[in-house]
Parts: sequence; structure tokens; C-alpha cells
Amino acid sequence: MRLKFLVAYLGTPFSGWQSQRDGNAVQDHIERALFEIIGVPTRIAGAGRTDAGVHALGQVFHVDVGHRTLDPAAWVRALNARLPPEIRILRACRVPADFHARFSAKGKAYRYVMETGPVLGPLEHGRAWHVVPPPSLETMTQAARLFLGRHNFSAFCAAPARTLHDPFREVWKIEVRSQGRRIWVDFEGEGFLYKMVRMLVAAMVRAGQGRTSLEELSRALVSGSPRQNHVAPACGLILQRVIYPRNR
Amino acid sequence: MRLKFLVAYLGTPFSGWQSQRDGNAVQDHIERALFEIIGVPTRIAGAGRTDAGVHALGQVFHVDVGHRTLDPAAWVRALNARLPPEIRILRACRVPADFHARFSAKGKAYRYVMETGPVLGPLEHGRAWHVVPPPSLETMTQAARLFLGRHNFSAFCAAPARTLHDPFREVWKIEVRSQGRRIWVDFEGEGFLYKMVRMLVAAMVRAGQGRTSLEELSRALVSGSPRQNHVAPACGLILQRVIYPRNR
Repeated sequence: MRLKFLVAYLGTPFSGWQSQRDGNAVQDHIERALFEIIGVPTRIAGAGRTDAGVHALGQVFHVDVGHRTLDPAAWVRALNARLPPEIRILRACRVPADFHARFSAKGKAYRYVMETGPVLGPLEHGRAWHVVPPPSLETMTQAARLFLGRHNFSAFCAAPARTLHDPFREVWKIEVRSQGRRIWVDFEGEGFLYKMVRMLVAAMVRAGQGRTSLEELSRALVSGSPRQNHVAPACGLILQRVIYPRNR
Repeated sequence: MRLKFLVAYLGTPFSGWQSQRDGNAVQDHIERALFEIIGVPTRIAGAGRTDAGVHALGQVFHVDVGHRTLDPAAWVRALNARLPPEIRILRACRVPADFHARFSAKGKAYRYVMETGPVLGPLEHGRAWHVVPPPSLETMTQAARLFLGRHNFSAFCAAPARTLHDPFREVWKIEVRSQGRRIWVDFEGEGFLYKMVRMLVAAMVRAGQGRTSLEELSRALVSGSPRQNHVAPACGLILQRVIYPRNR
């Protein structure tokens, strides 16, 4: 029986999503909790990796659990009872055997959060990038417009070039908003290269602070080089949700 | 020279405001940072104590620092450079020698935050009380009306009765609001007894869940007994600001 789980986590205490030797990845914690429940080592398949420090409100994974009698709500309770409070299973449901958390996804939505006040509030520590001086929202929005659509994003990706079979990605939405001293940027797209969201944010902020120009960003986007070497910190990023076709 | 500081902190990593043997109170951290700057052990005077786990966005303290040449903005930078990121000095200003963070205050404002969804989100862990089942907002508001004004709050106070020279306090404002599954209550008053805000919140929630009646609460308020023994957890409470007369 294949189950699909919706899970949220705080990135700060863990070593990212993907299983690590230190056993402290979110995946490790969930697989240990599953093992406690079903007594068999079981791998889960996530929709995508998040780096250490990156938060998730809507990560998805699937797992095959044999013909168990637990109903989905009982799975939620049983897992949450065994997981640290910084990882919470939000929902579970049964899915067809051909559902795959990663390969069935048609897109992802991320939010990046910044604070621009003179001092980063203690309740924002680990949850927002402290950006000073405050960038121009208008310039950030102009930079966002450059990135919209289907592009070769290899200049905005931290992976070695040879691992990039296909550096093209379509970005459907980049929305810059602000309230008081908080700025956030919402991204939606069919997929994002390694560290791409954080590199796009860094580029937008640098443009908004006048430290790079829209022309430079546009050139890097068109030519695929030079690779940008500015990455916004992990703590400001949240995987908001994984987007599936309507019937999944 | 007397300085007044505005400070914010996350309650989670510290042993409350007031200096403790473990050296991990917020006051201890600030006094150590001051010692590093001026080389003389110096006591600070806070506007009031907050318990371990309680957060502050607008705690105030004063300190006498001799005739130093540092201007207030330099004090903010120097302290923040030495404090953990979960404690942030927001502002400093010079005040007359008769200003006292505690005795000059004419009131305080607190916020209490609750989440009522089936699962407490990991980003809310340590920052909100998880309340299930969701209480009736209308009943909570009716309970709030009982508490408004000047009352003997000894039934809603955790301190031993003999320490209560004066159990009367005036509460100016109790406002219950909600958005989605979040409920928050804003309190303003001339002062609050030990754990009084958390005991008022617990009483309001219990009334809103039908586990106590408005009549019972009213009786406890009028007669001063029986002392209530429900205290909402520290992690939902935020000291929002200390209120001073306009010229302070």
C-alpha cells in the first residue's frame, strides 16, 4: 500500500532533508519513526531535497507500507508521537502505486523571507535573511521579470556544470511583496536547480541595492555565464508546497 | 550617566530574565556583554521579570555607566556584537538619573499566542500554545470582560499569598483576536501579578472550551479564591512593551 504524506519542518535543528551519516536529516528522523511503528527498515521518497537550514511547510514524501490496517489519520498520530516537535506530519492519504512524490510532481512553490530593519529581531533569527541596506523593491521586481519564463539557469545554479543534463527550467511566478521591514518573494516553477532560488534571491537583492545591474543579470541569464557566486542564506527559504496534477 | 535600553529576546534558549546561578538568564548575558565593554561588573535593572520560555519584543532596562564617550547607537552595536542572536538590543537613549526602568513604568503590554489546528506547525513550536479543541472566541471575550478593570487578582496569581501586599491590579485592555487557526490575546494594564497573564489566558481558554463557567471565574475574581491552578505555557507569552509616561 502506497501512502503520500505532507510534512512540515523547521530547518534549523536538522542536516537538511536527505539522509546523512549523522542520522540527523529529516528523512532519517522519519525513517526511524517508521521503523519503530512497522519494525522493518523502510525508505521514504521525498519530492525533493532541501538543504540544511531550509524550512518546509509542505514537503511531500511517499512510502510503501504493506497491507497495514492503520488508517491515514492513525499514521499521522503514530508518526508525530515519535518525531521531534520540529518535524510534523500534517496529512496522510492512500495513493495509487504509480504515484511518486518526486516524479509525479509538476512543480514546486518556495517562499524566501528577508528582514531589512537595522537589527534582526530575535524571533526572526534563523528564519529570515537580514538584508541591509534595504533593497529597492522596484528593482527587485524588475529583476524578477527577467527570470520569469523558460531560461537556461546554469549561471544561477551551484551544481557542477557536468551534472546539469538540462539547465533549462520554467519559472511561472516570482512575486515580491513587503510589509513593514519584511520582504518576501514567492516562487513557483516546474522545478529549480541546486540552490537556484537562493541565487535568484541574492541576484535580486544585489540589483535592488545597486551592487549589480539588470543588464549584468540579463547577460548571465542569456549566456549561462559567468556563474553567479552569491547565494542567499538557507534560513530564509521555505518549501511552501509541491504541486501535483489535479488528480494526484 | 544613566542609559535606557530597549531589548528583544527569544525566551526558549534562556533561563528567564532574572539573573540565575546557571548564568544563562537574559540579564546574565547582558551583564557579561557590558562587562566586556566597560571592564567593571555592572548590574542592570529590568522593568520586570519574564519567566523561562517567555519572549520579549519590548523589555526595558536601565544601567549607570559612568561618563563614557560611547553614543547610544554605539552602545547598541557594541552590545549586539557580544550578545547571542536570540537577544537583540533595539535602541538605547540617555535618560535622567531619576528614571528607573521598573519604578518609572506605568504599565505593561503582553500578547499571548495560541494555535488551534489539529497539529502544531513546527515553526510555531516554542512560540505558541497548542490549544485543542478550539475554544469559543465569543466565550473567551466574555471572560475577558470579567477581568477588565480593577480587581483583586489573588485567585489568578501563582505567588504565595503572604508575598502579596497588594493583590489589586487594574487591567485596561484585553483583546481577543483570531486569524485562521491562530488566536491571540492582547493585555494592557498597570501591572500583572506573578503568572497572572498566563492564568487569565488559561481561564479564558477553559471557559471557551466549556471546561469552566463564567460564573465560576467571576466568583474566583470576587472572592479571591479558590486559587486557580491552570497556567497557560510560557512559550505563548510575549512582553510587547513597557509603558512609560509620555516624558520618560
